[in-house]
Amino acid sequence: MVQVNENYLKLKAGYLFPEISKRVKIYTQKNLGDEIIKLGIGDVTEPLPQACRDAMHKALNEMGTSDGFKGYGPEQGYLWLREKISSNDFGSRGCHISPDEIFVSDGSKCDSSNILDILGANNSIAVTDPVYPVYVDSNVMTGRTGEALQNGTYQGLTYLSINEKNNFLPELPKTKVDIVYLCFPNNPTGATITKEELKKWVDYALQNKSLILFDSAYEAFIQNKDIPHSIYEIEGAKECAIEFRSFSKNAGFTGVRCAYTVVPKNLSGLSSKGEKLDLWSLWNRRQSTKFNGVSYIVQRGAEAVYSSQGKKEVMKLIDFYMENAKMMKDKLQIAGFKVYGGDNAPYIWIKVPDKMTSWDFFDYLLEKAKVVGTPGSGFGLSGEGYFRLSAFNSRSNVLDAMERIITI
Amino acid sequence: MVQVNENYLKLKAGYLFPEISKRVKIYTQKNLGDEIIKLGIGDVTEPLPQACRDAMHKALNEMGTSDGFKGYGPEQGYLWLREKISSNDFGSRGCHISPDEIFVSDGSKCDSSNILDILGANNSIAVTDPVYPVYVDSNVMTGRTGEALQNGTYQGLTYLSINEKNNFLPELPKTKVDIVYLCFPNNPTGATITKEELKKWVDYALQNKSLILFDSAYEAFIQNKDIPHSIYEIEGAKECAIEFRSFSKNAGFTGVRCAYTVVPKNLSGLSSKGEKLDLWSLWNRRQSTKFNGVSYIVQRGAEAVYSSQGKKEVMKLIDFYMENAKMMKDKLQIAGFKVYGGDNAPYIWIKVPDKMTSWDFFDYLLEKAKVVGTPGSGFGLSGEGYFRLSAFNSRSNVLDAMERIITI
Repeated sequence: MVQVNENYLKLKAGYLFPEISKRVKIYTQKNLGDEIIKLGIGDVTEPLPQACRDAMHKALNEMGTSDGFKGYGPEQGYLWLREKISSNDFGSRGCHISPDEIFVSDGSKCDSSNILDILGANNSIAVTDPVYPVYVDSNVMTGRTGEALQNGTYQGLTYLSINEKNNFLPELPKTKVDIVYLCFPNNPTGATITKEELKKWVDYALQNKSLILFDSAYEAFIQNKDIPHSIYEIEGAKECAIEFRSFSKNAGFTGVRCAYTVVPKNLSGLSSKGEKLDLWSLWNRRQSTKFNGVSYIVQRGAEAVYSSQGKKEVMKLIDFYMENAKMMKDKLQIAGFKVYGGDNAPYIWIKVPDKMTSWDFFDYLLEKAKVVGTPGSGFGLSGEGYFRLSAFNSRSNVLDAMERIITI
Repeated sequence: MVQVNENYLKLKAGYLFPEISKRVKIYTQKNLGDEIIKLGIGDVTEPLPQACRDAMHKALNEMGTSDGFKGYGPEQGYLWLREKISSNDFGSRGCHISPDEIFVSDGSKCDSSNILDILGANNSIAVTDPVYPVYVDSNVMTGRTGEALQNGTYQGLTYLSINEKNNFLPELPKTKVDIVYLCFPNNPTGATITKEELKKWVDYALQNKSLILFDSAYEAFIQNKDIPHSIYEIEGAKECAIEFRSFSKNAGFTGVRCAYTVVPKNLSGLSSKGEKLDLWSLWNRRQSTKFNGVSYIVQRGAEAVYSSQGKKEVMKLIDFYMENAKMMKDKLQIAGFKVYGGDNAPYIWIKVPDKMTSWDFFDYLLEKAKVVGTPGSGFGLSGEGYFRLSAFNSRSNVLDAMERIITI
């Protein structure tokens, strides 16, 4: 009889966000008519930039003509988009990433989990704690962990705590790990990393021949000009890091779907016989075989992000959300909360009042203020005692939510 | 040091189509100015239906408004699309597939390879020979086969030859296999299967508790009303089969990207301890964790395929390509070739002249007629001696290509 991949059985309960939805649903069924403000999921709310829409309308019109019709595109993405990414996102910051090192995809969630396809099953793996749950779950599902322990962690994974004491910066692992996931600006804590601190990680990886999986989905929110937007701003990173980028948060593409992954050509891994194999070829083969490229229309929309009008509109969106973040931080501080993040990231990381757990605080905010956020413990053991609020919302919702929280 | 997934090293040479591109490139560099007609890759050529474009323009406009903006959608696809699929593609043919058994995705290539994520590594696997290469390669990449043999087959896979003698219908495996891939109308041979023949497979699967992975991407091209469009037209199939469907070939979505997979709720597999586990829950978890849904705009385009205008336009596209197929078949027969397929599928499967291999014939057609097709051996050992031509092209290209072949 057909057998299942029983690694799935190790997964703990539901994914964080379905659990939130469930609690909200129960609350609203009991309290019909209550208007809830959702600052939970990190999903953008503002209209798609005009420049992107114009480009997509144009692409759609082309698709209606015999000459302009496009069938299968390159699995790696169209060269015109990869060239724009190369020069705008990397060249402009002094990083040499060639267009063919860029693989356009339909999302960073897919890429950051699919990347495991090309990596061996026995690599040792480190994640920060708290962490974006997809990194952990995708490792569990592919058999790279042991069972879940009572406290929610998985055997076999190395957890690097990020907390108030270390300023939300993970310390280098004491033992050698093969793969490290880093996300900066950080989801969920909103913390950032300096070039100096990031260099320690690149040095660690080079020394131990480890691979860094660097998630930079929130780089557009960086306000401080000294903070790196890409790990490739650090010398040596092209020999030890893969970077994930997305159009979801800067240009509001969460419902449009476009992202990309950088796999430098001089990145390598080992076979069990000790042969050096380049990861670029493996990823290229993976994408060619298991993926059919991103919608032509969507890629034209992504290209428009780099037009002068597109850049202006994206900047406006970022400013808008970061203004939200600032207001939230200010108000929450006035209300007496200890708050982190929000300066260079669209997430506010609140220290939950004493004697409350993260889920207690979730229920408390939902019942008293009708505001939904995300319990820190949903992101990991060290997230307990914290709570994430997202700055992705309309101005009026943000102001209302803060007013409600202040006046509880 | 980070280790790679060395199963990738077992993969034979390049994927078929890159090899074709390479040979065409070499030819064109030597013969500048020669106009080549490509009937190789099965990619549509005619404009996207107006109904789909209209719906997508409308969706794009919505995305430009605060009220109409859509962020993350359901990972499984929007309910309105899944409902249309359920009633139009299944209900109308007497199959009860509920909307929540339908998972919308960005392509069948992704789905048919990602499905392995939820299945155990030790299942025995059967594929037809010749076969769509992705089924084999995705198994190789995930360690479900042994090494490649000299003849191009992989150890550990069961190959079911489809050839002239068995009328391109695979015989039931002599040994028990856990997973069987079937594709009808067939790529590459263009063969179809009757309900009676398909019932034998469903019975086999039910008896052996096997899983059938049924690829029905070409169902829209079926002309004979007795041929099943879905495996669920066969009683019992909901207990043993997953079906892959796509908007690529019927509505010309190869560059737009939308497909779906049906995972019935009463489908189960075993854990190693013998527990019964339902595949729907595993696939739902897989998609929720590793995928972020299809572009809202694209899903609106797919929905329009089911509008009355959309249906008319799709029918016209199908008629157009099938008219191509008919002309090709007629002309090739006049030219003395033995030809299969093309009656209920957009592929013509030519028996290559004696003493030529498939690749010989590829080079011969390229040099003598400047026509590109696909060597049958690229689809497997039993494809040797055959050659695939695709009916996806403009009328004038098809007529030109046939004229050139006839007058060699």
